[in-house]
Amino acid sequence: MKNAFIVLAASLCVMQGAQAQPASAGPLDPKLLEDLIAANRIIAMENIVDAMGHVSVRHNRDPNRYVMSLARAPELVTAEDLMEYDLDSVPVRDPGRRQYSERYIHGEIYKLRPDVMAVIHNHSPSVIPFGVSSVPLRAVAHSGGFLAEGLPIYEIRDSGGQTDMLVSNAKYGRDLAQKLGNKSAILMRGHGAAVVGPSLPYVVGRSIYLDRGAKMQQEAIALGGTVNYLSAEEGRKIEARRDYIRAWELWKRKAMGPTAPR
Amino acid sequence: MKNAFIVLAASLCVMQGAQAQPASAGPLDPKLLEDLIAANRIIAMENIVDAMGHVSVRHNRDPNRYVMSLARAPELVTAEDLMEYDLDSVPVRDPGRRQYSERYIHGEIYKLRPDVMAVIHNHSPSVIPFGVSSVPLRAVAHSGGFLAEGLPIYEIRDSGGQTDMLVSNAKYGRDLAQKLGNKSAILMRGHGAAVVGPSLPYVVGRSIYLDRGAKMQQEAIALGGTVNYLSAEEGRKIEARRDYIRAWELWKRKAMGPTAPR
Amino acid sequence: MKNAFIVLAASLCVMQGAQAQPASAGPLDPKLLEDLIAANRIIAMENIVDAMGHVSVRHNRDPNRYVMSLARAPELVTAEDLMEYDLDSVPVRDPGRRQYSERYIHGEIYKLRPDVMAVIHNHSPSVIPFGVSSVPLRAVAHSGGFLAEGLPIYEIRDSGGQTDMLVSNAKYGRDLAQKLGNKSAILMRGHGAAVVGPSLPYVVGRSIYLDRGAKMQQEAIALGGTVNYLSAEEGRKIEARRDYIRAWELWKRKAMGPTAPR
Amino acid sequence: MKNAFIVLAASLCVMQGAQAQPASAGPLDPKLLEDLIAANRIIAMENIVDAMGHVSVRHNRDPNRYVMSLARAPELVTAEDLMEYDLDSVPVRDPGRRQYSERYIHGEIYKLRPDVMAVIHNHSPSVIPFGVSSVPLRAVAHSGGFLAEGLPIYEIRDSGGQTDMLVSNAKYGRDLAQKLGNKSAILMRGHGAAVVGPSLPYVVGRSIYLDRGAKMQQEAIALGGTVNYLSAEEGRKIEARRDYIRAWELWKRKAMGPTAPR
Repeated sequence: MKNAFIVLAASLCVMQGAQAQPASAGPLDPKLLEDLIAANRIIAMENIVDAMGHVSVRHNRDPNRYVMSLARAPELVTAEDLMEYDLDSVPVRDPGRRQYSERYIHGEIYKLRPDVMAVIHNHSPSVIPFGVSSVPLRAVAHSGGFLAEGLPIYEIRDSGGQTDMLVSNAKYGRDLAQKLGNKSAILMRGHGAAVVGPSLPYVVGRSIYLDRGAKMQQEAIALGGTVNYLSAEEGRKIEARRDYIRAWELWKRKAMGPTAPR
Repeated sequence: MKNAFIVLAASLCVMQGAQAQPASAGPLDPKLLEDLIAANRIIAMENIVDAMGHVSVRHNRDPNRYVMSLARAPELVTAEDLMEYDLDSVPVRDPGRRQYSERYIHGEIYKLRPDVMAVIHNHSPSVIPFGVSSVPLRAVAHSGGFLAEGLPIYEIRDSGGQTDMLVSNAKYGRDLAQKLGNKSAILMRGHGAAVVGPSLPYVVGRSIYLDRGAKMQQEAIALGGTVNYLSAEEGRKIEARRDYIRAWELWKRKAMGPTAPR
Repeated sequence: MKNAFIVLAASLCVMQGAQAQPASAGPLDPKLLEDLIAANRIIAMENIVDAMGHVSVRHNRDPNRYVMSLARAPELVTAEDLMEYDLDSVPVRDPGRRQYSERYIHGEIYKLRPDVMAVIHNHSPSVIPFGVSSVPLRAVAHSGGFLAEGLPIYEIRDSGGQTDMLVSNAKYGRDLAQKLGNKSAILMRGHGAAVVGPSLPYVVGRSIYLDRGAKMQQEAIALGGTVNYLSAEEGRKIEARRDYIRAWELWKRKAMGPTAPR
Repeated sequence: MKNAFIVLAASLCVMQGAQAQPASAGPLDPKLLEDLIAANRIIAMENIVDAMGHVSVRHNRDPNRYVMSLARAPELVTAEDLMEYDLDSVPVRDPGRRQYSERYIHGEIYKLRPDVMAVIHNHSPSVIPFGVSSVPLRAVAHSGGFLAEGLPIYEIRDSGGQTDMLVSNAKYGRDLAQKLGNKSAILMRGHGAAVVGPSLPYVVGRSIYLDRGAKMQQEAIALGGTVNYLSAEEGRKIEARRDYIRAWELWKRKAMGPTAPR
């Protein structure tokens, strides 16, 4: 009788802990899970991330959940590393695992942007110079059509003054998401960028061409003449027709090996 | 009897579809086919293309046909992907396969330039800055002798105003081909380049040295002094003696593996 | 009897030789040894060193000893190449092996900085331009927080006038260590840098991000606008929270192969 | 009788052909031959050459002979490709094989510079900008000590006016060799460089650090401040102590595989 009471109390404690944690939406679609692993590998292969940076996808069963690795370099991420979060960026289980401190970038964007199905945060090398320069990033190539209208820059000093520059709480994440507005990406001053889109191929593709476009613009400027940028209307027309089907086939096969389905 | 009529009607429909399509010139020379696959792999290996861009060759049996992959990243192209087109860029079979929307670049150049036997369209990274800059691309090195007289730039706004910037119809293709004139390559503003030549090794070689030459000119300019460019006469004398035999041997062996014939 | 005397005399000679040499602190901790090999490979893999440059670690059994390879390219270093030195950079055995002539960088820094547990000397390509420029290296990215307060530059002309520029004696090493002060790294004019830290992952990480940060600052400057650098306070707050756990896991696995412990 | 006469006449023709050709000095030292193959592979691996460029070594048995590959991309060169030349750059056998048209660079330098034991001609990408710029190449790093006194630039217009820019005859080769003087390398306007030294490791090392030094100087200039170059005396003191032993061990093992002797 006494033993039974103890067991009951212990169960209640566990349940209380479970109550504090959000409920899981259940398993992610296997195809989406495969693509999330692939996205992690691709952005490493394409030098969009080194050991740092992260990619998430909104859960196919519940728009109020997203899935992302625990704190691990994208190149090493496997299915066992994936964690499910609610939009406050609280994990549905295993809260003791080491997590990305900047997961709020993802959760707060998913809250404000129902159209966004995937998010990447990265520090790609050609983007950072534009985040600290008075010279705005613009589009010099078709591949960067989404840059033609310009991108906002998130200044964490506006959110928190002198900080460690990490978007490591909900307030900073919300400020960033608001500054993002309806754009495809936002630069982060002295830090990197956050890239959003309707699917994993889009955020991977945009992250790659954001970096490549920044590099090409820098080289165009270095020539010393005037630069003939894409117009905003050209950018809109390009993006209206854009998909990343052909590129995704290539990237996924290269990152996952030739046995990946074509 | 009724069944036989239905079968006949169905056959006629298929034949009508076939009639609307141009006739095939027959199989491509196997050596040319092998070189076309190699060219696809080489331009990927040398970072002239990523997932996008394409290479074609004029058919050895009929100057009014050319051969090019369906819409696939060059690095992944195999013999099964190759399609035969007439010079209006209509495929001789399988019109339902996903095709490069910019195939008109190839067809319209083949129409106007009987000397051209191969065409590459690419977005190589060091060329794009010159397509948007007021500073003209010129030759700083022997390897870029074909640049010594300067290259034209195609401005799609002259053809179609504000567009999605794709050369996705015959008119834009024709305008580009006319602007190309008798040159070896043409830059495309905010987009990339089209490179032509008398064989696949030439278009591959010119694509590579167009990109490398652009990079070296950019670095020469960044030094801040005056730049001593090749003269037009030097360029002509260089190109009169140019072949890509030694380079093609290397590129093909690296792209196709050591079993490729030397 | 005579023979025994000869043997005794020979033994004394050997002992005298041993007396001139410092005593060994004994075997290095196996985990530290493994990490030292890994650090050598990682800095080669990440292009921080080519054939030249070196990495050392303070001995875990004796703060007056450090361990470093004999004169060998870091990429090739194995356990058999490791030598133990006292802080005057005299080896505890095998003084006849070919040694890094600039080992005094390590020994003299270990003397002045008890907090330093590892040192790297390198010639990474993006750092050298800042060592010869009147434009100071600063922090443009979170990853370079330790650069926010600026780094000193060691000028060997102040130590030795016109030299062969090698820190190949104790005086030059001491001058460099004094100039380093309490910073994380010091540039060396016309030569490279010395990077210090509380562990091997720190010196490896700082060497990598020193190089990457220099490259990004150079590109930010090339844009031609004003540059918004990290503040000293941001740098301090970033570094207070910094570790290289996630990066070290990636680097070590890539450099040592997938069998390396995760 | 008549038949015998015909055979004799034919033999005389063959012998006359042989008389026109210089005599062979005999087989090259096997170690030197191995290093010559290695040098070819290393300069390809380190991006000093692509398909073009060449490396030669003076014959160990006769200072009036040198050994170099037939016309083949350095990365593919094997022992069967090696040809022996006299200092007029006439091959001792097989004159019908396809040869480097610019072999006169090598022969004429060996004539004028008895101290030179190996020569490389290359088009390395960071060197070409300095060959066409009014800004002189100088030394910004210890690794480029041989640049501290400056390098001459060969202008083929001074030798031949408007040419195809190839050093494809003895006169141009001699002019280049005279312009080289007693230096370690000479830039060639709009073309590349010729690098000389007392052994294969020296010419390989100087070719690599010539390219790396040019790149670093370009980046130092791009910072926009003043640049603190190495003094001529520093350069001389550095080079007096220079060897490439450690680098050669690394390069050879990487280029030839782990079975290469350490």
